[in-house]
Amino acid sequence: MKETDLIKKYLFPISKHFKPSINLQDDAAILKSFDKENFIISVDSFIQGIHCPSFLDPKSMAIRAIFCATSDLAAMGAIPYCMFLSLTIPKNKGSSFFKSIANGIEESIDRVGISLAGGDLTSYCGPLAISVTVVGRKKTIEKALFRRGSKVGDYIGVTGFIGDAYLGLKILEKKISISDRKHEKAAVDSFLFPPQLHKFAANLSKHAKACIDISDGLVEDLKKLSDLANCGVSISKEKVPISDNAKLFLKKGKFTLKDYLTAGDDYQLAFTFDKKNIKKIKVLEKKFNLKISVIGELIKKKGVFLNNKNIRGGFSHF
Amino acid sequence: MKETDLIKKYLFPISKHFKPSINLQDDAAILKSFDKENFIISVDSFIQGIHCPSFLDPKSMAIRAIFCATSDLAAMGAIPYCMFLSLTIPKNKGSSFFKSIANGIEESIDRVGISLAGGDLTSYCGPLAISVTVVGRKKTIEKALFRRGSKVGDYIGVTGFIGDAYLGLKILEKKISISDRKHEKAAVDSFLFPPQLHKFAANLSKHAKACIDISDGLVEDLKKLSDLANCGVSISKEKVPISDNAKLFLKKGKFTLKDYLTAGDDYQLAFTFDKKNIKKIKVLEKKFNLKISVIGELIKKKGVFLNNKNIRGGFSHF
Repeated sequence: MKETDLIKKYLFPISKHFKPSINLQDDAAILKSFDKENFIISVDSFIQGIHCPSFLDPKSMAIRAIFCATSDLAAMGAIPYCMFLSLTIPKNKGSSFFKSIANGIEESIDRVGISLAGGDLTSYCGPLAISVTVVGRKKTIEKALFRRGSKVGDYIGVTGFIGDAYLGLKILEKKISISDRKHEKAAVDSFLFPPQLHKFAANLSKHAKACIDISDGLVEDLKKLSDLANCGVSISKEKVPISDNAKLFLKKGKFTLKDYLTAGDDYQLAFTFDKKNIKKIKVLEKKFNLKISVIGELIKKKGVFLNNKNIRGGFSHF
Repeated sequence: MKETDLIKKYLFPISKHFKPSINLQDDAAILKSFDKENFIISVDSFIQGIHCPSFLDPKSMAIRAIFCATSDLAAMGAIPYCMFLSLTIPKNKGSSFFKSIANGIEESIDRVGISLAGGDLTSYCGPLAISVTVVGRKKTIEKALFRRGSKVGDYIGVTGFIGDAYLGLKILEKKISISDRKHEKAAVDSFLFPPQLHKFAANLSKHAKACIDISDGLVEDLKKLSDLANCGVSISKEKVPISDNAKLFLKKGKFTLKDYLTAGDDYQLAFTFDKKNIKKIKVLEKKFNLKISVIGELIKKKGVFLNNKNIRGGFSHF
């Protein structure tokens, strides 16, 4: 099938007449400026075999690519608006392969609440590659969240659990299994459907100083935050949120805490805030029915320290 | 070298403190809304061996990728503002390879007048792939140009010459040569540096009905315009602008006119306009010191006709 036919048959229906996309007929989309709102844009590449195991089906890969990309918007405190997809597809795949991708896009649109605005389609001799350009909206009266902006003494908060996506990946790779099906599904879903914390983050931006989504591992990403503040990080083993699933594998000696803290893929949010805002953070925790753990604080000494011992490592896709 | 180090060393300096990019520290950029202006966004993938010959050096490839992507903004009548680059680099390439890409980005920035706002960087087992997200600005009081909007009887105009990029590609592939070095360079440059017609197009939008940049060949792209108007196209051999270089190869029997009209890669603009605006188009031709040829008109019968004979074909990268 030709590029234009694939777009017409599979992508146009799921663009759902999003006006700025001009029915995907043109190569560009027009984003009209909203009064008192800014756009926040981020681009993320996602390659089969690099950012996810090569056996993952195209639908799951499309969903994960889009969920990971929109997570960048949450890290800035922005609400998803629309996205552009650059799809690069292995040669000689039939249209069922493309249909599977389109199904993933459609599911993401519905779950994230983001529109398809445009993109590009090519085939080549290489793995499935999806580059996602996401556009978010942020009210100008609200502070955007950056990675910079912390200082020594600030507390560090994280959402959800750390290491569950790593477990999910290991289950998909058939390296471990969890006998309880419901628990197993929960771990796999942590990998396949990165959390979408936009509304929480938009509110968090009023009280936090800096924020990052944990894509390269808690240790590596906290290092990025603290490097920009020219300081270090002290976190406490006991306070790092580990799920019961993950604790089980620690107990068995299958994985170490370091595995969880450096593996990446959690896409939870890590953020810093002034100690005096702790009550406001607790209010958000309740309001959004979200687990938030305060795991440590920023210190003068550079580096990341777990119970005073230097810890390093993270995921690098380069 | 690590991803963050490559960005810091090579890309940060050429982002030239473009404010919305937040010094490339975060994963996203903030585009503040401009009063009475809209953003126009387009995404284009560019893969070595598919969109350009595989022997092309990384610098030239980066330039061509960016020039092709910004051409989409011209087709809408928008002025380039900033871009996001998703760079996917073959594994095991040294930093000189990346430096060459960075040089290409820097040259494009200077020549196009566009800023680097962000992006993504990955390495993999595959050809160099660059996905470019371009953001343009368009005053809300100005009409944007779309592919739709023409009707039977409208004239068809094209900028520059058709087929020169095809010649340039053949020279790069060493399939032909031109004895006059200056002429040879002109043809190669047509391929390497697609035209940047933004200011002309922003003015054209007042008088034209529809517009497209000729990336897949004049015939294929005129078909897209006329299909959206539910009509066809009649063009005249004598009026299609062919350079002296290209004429020489026609005379020698090396190439046919069909080769030029279906080869693609010219990135000139093809547009439709009401007959009565012909004088205004001529004024623009002078004002922008640009060759404009009126090559035919839209007709009832569907399809593209060259001197009344149906002509088909175009470049497909799928």
